[in-house]
Amino acid sequence: MDCIFCKIVDGAIPSKKVFENDRVLAFQDIQPAAPVHILIIPKKHIPTMNDVADEDNELIGELFAVARQIAQEQGIAEAGYRLVNNVNEDGGQIVYHLHIHLLGGKKLGALIAT
Amino acid sequence: MDCIFCKIVDGAIPSKKVFENDRVLAFQDIQPAAPVHILIIPKKHIPTMNDVADEDNELIGELFAVARQIAQEQGIAEAGYRLVNNVNEDGGQIVYHLHIHLLGGKKLGALIAT
Repeated sequence: MDCIFCKIVDGAIPSKKVFENDRVLAFQDIQPAAPVHILIIPKKHIPTMNDVADEDNELIGELFAVARQIAQEQGIAEAGYRLVNNVNEDGGQIVYHLHIHLLGGKKLGALIAT
Repeated sequence: MDCIFCKIVDGAIPSKKVFENDRVLAFQDIQPAAPVHILIIPKKHIPTMNDVADEDNELIGELFAVARQIAQEQGIAEAGYRLVNNVNEDGGQIVYHLHIHLLGGKKLGALIAT
């Protein structure tokens, strides 16, 4: 398995963990784009949102349950935050293990697609 | 109920629908930020991601199942796309009825948080 996020799940590559259970891991992004920038991933290897099977819908829902819990813990839930999932090249996906970006800690700009 | 998206769900305000079932509605954003810009919402009124109850995790998963189906139908799944959920003011949320932005149809820029 050559996936960097699978290696983070396995502990072969270190990360600053924020949350972990049997199915989900969250850790600090090493190149933060905002004061709070955390990645939330399924432990199971799913390359992109395109590859999610319908039986994993609840797992996807759980990623967002973890996101809102972390937003509370980080103290940014009320002020606000942004959740982003990039898919494939046009979406700007870099690591091909599905991940949700949790961004916050300041007023984020308008939704910029360019 | 003074929520514009609830009025779209009810049909009191027209929209260009892309998908609909008993739980989920998707429609064209009226101010598109990319060639493809579709909003995916639960029919049920949930103001923000902060307000999602754990029993609605599967509903949140279904929003993303609908997103990936629409991406396929729009012909942008392989090229790629971006899914965004803005929460409260710092996140840039404008309408307080939870919605996922599906953006694509061109190469989107890097994840810009500023």
